Amino acid sequence: MADKLAMVVFSGTVDRLMPVGIIASGAVAMGLDVEIFLTFWGLNSFRKDMISSNMKFSKDYEEMAPMMMQLMKSKNVPSWFDTLKKAKEVGNVKVHACAMTYDLMSMKKEELADIVDDVIAVGEFVDIARDAKFTLFI
Amino acid sequence: MADKLAMVVFSGTVDRLMPVGIIASGAVAMGLDVEIFLTFWGLNSFRKDMISSNMKFSKDYEEMAPMMMQLMKSKNVPSWFDTLKKAKEVGNVKVHACAMTYDLMSMKKEELADIVDDVIAVGEFVDIARDAKFTLFI
Amino acid sequence: MADKLAMVVFSGTVDRLMPVGIIASGAVAMGLDVEIFLTFWGLNSFRKDMISSNMKFSKDYEEMAPMMMQLMKSKNVPSWFDTLKKAKEVGNVKVHACAMTYDLMSMKKEELADIVDDVIAVGEFVDIARDAKFTLFI
Repeated sequence: MADKLAMVVFSGTVDRLMPVGIIASGAVAMGLDVEIFLTFWGLNSFRKDMISSNMKFSKDYEEMAPMMMQLMKSKNVPSWFDTLKKAKEVGNVKVHACAMTYDLMSMKKEELADIVDDVIAVGEFVDIARDAKFTLFI
Repeated sequence: MADKLAMVVFSGTVDRLMPVGIIASGAVAMGLDVEIFLTFWGLNSFRKDMISSNMKFSKDYEEMAPMMMQLMKSKNVPSWFDTLKKAKEVGNVKVHACAMTYDLMSMKKEELADIVDDVIAVGEFVDIARDAKFTLFI
Repeated sequence: MADKLAMVVFSGTVDRLMPVGIIASGAVAMGLDVEIFLTFWGLNSFRKDMISSNMKFSKDYEEMAPMMMQLMKSKNVPSWFDTLKKAKEVGNVKVHACAMTYDLMSMKKEELADIVDDVIAVGEFVDIARDAKFTLFI
């Protein structure tokens, strides 16, 4: 069984979602499996209608956001979502929605991007993450 | 000895404190011990007078905060503090205050919520967390 | 070989950089090695011209920032950078720049603080962090 790493994705700003895709990408390149748990604003950002419309950057760095978006565009950096999708095509990446957030926001499966595999309780995720090499809270 | 997970709680906004309670809750349900280290804004949010008065949400999502608070209220979601307190009643959850922040803010034991067990240095926490299954920075 | 801990430093606000220095400091005091990966706003905050000029605090707590800065000054708390530098002098602390951010921002080695050891890809960092006792995303 391959080593794995896990990520709790709490945030929903583009600048914080970028590392989710990039770390997943680097992990599969090194032969690790990846387990992702989407919660709160993180899960909200995986709604189909949010994937392309979300342009939100952390308020802490908002004065640098236009420059960063311009740089990413001019250097053809793929979006966080395409990076994550590619990682999932290449390697073993599982994407779980947090049941509590899912219920709280009265979500429906069809509203979420196809990349989301299932809806699980936080306890189940803890059980998955306990065997990971490391787990990040993003 | 049970497996454990650890959390460094740096943040003090309600939306980021929710996962602290919920992850602690999920962890004890799965039989893990939990070690929490409160620092900076995180420790500040464990002052007795902050527990019920703190309504602060991350500025990044402030336009969604009223909707989220309304949802949590209408669905009777317990507060982050009650969730954490319940986890501590059910399982083995230790809550440590960061000595440096405690000194910096000239805190007194009686100003902090009873849920806080002790005041320890960051080195002591590193020593605790090195044996944890995983450690999150929230 | 000593145990190690790892940190992904994504953030660039002073209040979030403080724990980077302090945790590194606590870790070396306990005999652990430290591996730091600077990315996005985190790497930007290690530019030579940012080290002393960066006064940015998280927007979430900006109303408390002046009080905190005043407290840190009056109590002679060393800056996050001096704390990290000291940890690196005392123990085994490696500081890596994220190649993707480095390229995206068209950085030059001489623009970065001397404390930065090298530029590596995220996959290399995942490979380093997989052996760490724990890895934080800050």
